[in-house]
Amino acid sequence: MDTVIEALESAFRHFDTARTEPRKRDGFTLRNERTGVLEWMPVMQHGESVTIKVVSYNPTNPHRYGVPTIIATNSVYDCATGRLLELMDGVLPTALRTGAASAIASKYLADPDSRVVGMVGCGAQAVTQLHALSRLFRIERVLAYDVDLGVLRTYLRRVGFLGLDVRPASLEELEAESDIICTVTSVGVGEGPVVSDGRFKPSVHINAVGSDLPGKTELPLSLLERSLVCPDFLEQALVEGECQQLRPEQIGPGIIEVVQHPERYADWRKRSTVFDSTGFALEDQVVTRALTRRARELGLGTEVELESLAGDAMNPYDELLPTHGAQASLRTARLD
Amino acid sequence: MDTVIEALESAFRHFDTARTEPRKRDGFTLRNERTGVLEWMPVMQHGESVTIKVVSYNPTNPHRYGVPTIIATNSVYDCATGRLLELMDGVLPTALRTGAASAIASKYLADPDSRVVGMVGCGAQAVTQLHALSRLFRIERVLAYDVDLGVLRTYLRRVGFLGLDVRPASLEELEAESDIICTVTSVGVGEGPVVSDGRFKPSVHINAVGSDLPGKTELPLSLLERSLVCPDFLEQALVEGECQQLRPEQIGPGIIEVVQHPERYADWRKRSTVFDSTGFALEDQVVTRALTRRARELGLGTEVELESLAGDAMNPYDELLPTHGAQASLRTARLD
Repeated sequence: MDTVIEALESAFRHFDTARTEPRKRDGFTLRNERTGVLEWMPVMQHGESVTIKVVSYNPTNPHRYGVPTIIATNSVYDCATGRLLELMDGVLPTALRTGAASAIASKYLADPDSRVVGMVGCGAQAVTQLHALSRLFRIERVLAYDVDLGVLRTYLRRVGFLGLDVRPASLEELEAESDIICTVTSVGVGEGPVVSDGRFKPSVHINAVGSDLPGKTELPLSLLERSLVCPDFLEQALVEGECQQLRPEQIGPGIIEVVQHPERYADWRKRSTVFDSTGFALEDQVVTRALTRRARELGLGTEVELESLAGDAMNPYDELLPTHGAQASLRTARLD
Repeated sequence: MDTVIEALESAFRHFDTARTEPRKRDGFTLRNERTGVLEWMPVMQHGESVTIKVVSYNPTNPHRYGVPTIIATNSVYDCATGRLLELMDGVLPTALRTGAASAIASKYLADPDSRVVGMVGCGAQAVTQLHALSRLFRIERVLAYDVDLGVLRTYLRRVGFLGLDVRPASLEELEAESDIICTVTSVGVGEGPVVSDGRFKPSVHINAVGSDLPGKTELPLSLLERSLVCPDFLEQALVEGECQQLRPEQIGPGIIEVVQHPERYADWRKRSTVFDSTGFALEDQVVTRALTRRARELGLGTEVELESLAGDAMNPYDELLPTHGAQASLRTARLD
């Protein structure tokens, strides 16, 4: 996680649209039991590679199929030839980079002395949210809330490795006492918000992670309106983030701007701030690179020859057919 | 090839937008020695699967890297969970389905008695163009032309397995004598057309295969204007096919409409017709399915466990960390 946080913060700091071209995600709506999506998230590093994450969101996955709500596959293609260079499961990378993004946003926008974290929604992403925050903040207490008591119960076990004081809490308690809140829910389209706008701390920082579909939002408008709302990728947040609820003039700087110019936004660390985290392709590029490097160091992974490129580049059947020597000379003789 | 032709013709005949949702391709422009692209081509079969081809076009690939101009990777995802089901090299599938599409278009739009085929551009795609046509027409003569004499010479060898009378020809000869012409070139953006509008046969059918980039076209406008121009996928052909050159009212029916209602267009078999083949996602879905089925029958392919989904769906670290039994009971005790 430290590697991912460091790599992502560095990517934000050095981000330059002349070198890196992220696209907002696009995809299909899945007509499953609950609305799902299957989307592609491409980003190009000019002259180097294109990383594409294909990601699906199906909130019934854990209970129905025993697999994660968010399933993803990351692939990397060579810009020179177009060849597939790497293929990686995207489930863990997505969880890692989403956690890292919240930690970085919190570093620049939350009270540096934040001690109490509130977790609204305790599924898979809540594990890495807390892990990432724990690397940058001295967390004394974690207040956990989930509408599903079974999920809440297993959360305490799933984050046990962090050795933190994690306790179930009511939403009211969580909202009143948390310095940093993460909303990480599978709330249905049109069924938000997932928190009230009650007694938040004046300096509260909220990582709004769950909104990733048109119509799916987690925060009350009034809270957004009095906070500095920083999207990860504005173009995408306008379609599927908390920014859906706001007029352009109500939206703050992007997280990249904040990381590149922290002095401009330092005052906000004592005021209400929101990181509108929709999750974007740049983050996937960064985590894919970091994990590929680590995998190489550890000798993990498998080299696969997917293509048949050893033969004649102009003969699609090169590997399939025996060469027709005699016939070939017969025909080519006509050229002379 | 017979399997692919049959499967693709059936897919055209039974195509229904309520069940199948192809998207036009989108992608990045590659700033290589010559303009290239890297694009994604998604299609969803509702309730079943999503097929995505990631394809790149780099005309300098063969000479510079010894790999095909068109490199592709086809992947198939489960609509229910989002899991990657299949991954396949797309180089051969792309060549197969592009050839099959031209053969099907020729079956419905060319003179059924066509005997002479003209091939303008003799790279990799020209191999499968001729192979596919040879399955549906009694070809007596093939007139081949390429601006690169070396490519022309090896073409005679590469299509030797077909046992056809293939001979180099001048463009003038090719245009005057061919019943069916395929334009399959890597002509540069803005550098077309690749044929003149001279003495074509009145019933000529042209499969315009090469245009697949904004600004890249192969046919003269005058020829398009007096022909029935049938795009494979209108939405896409308007952006990067020969249809770029035409006003909406100058564009004929899509190939799916022609296959579904052949009687409406039968008269055109004796007149000038053009298949504007940009290559679209439906074709990739069809060929991926056909080849997957064949691979299963032949016991080819490898089962790979890319994801770590065996454990707790809500714990991204399930496979990485030892379980914390003691800690877990300590924490969960607080819930009771």
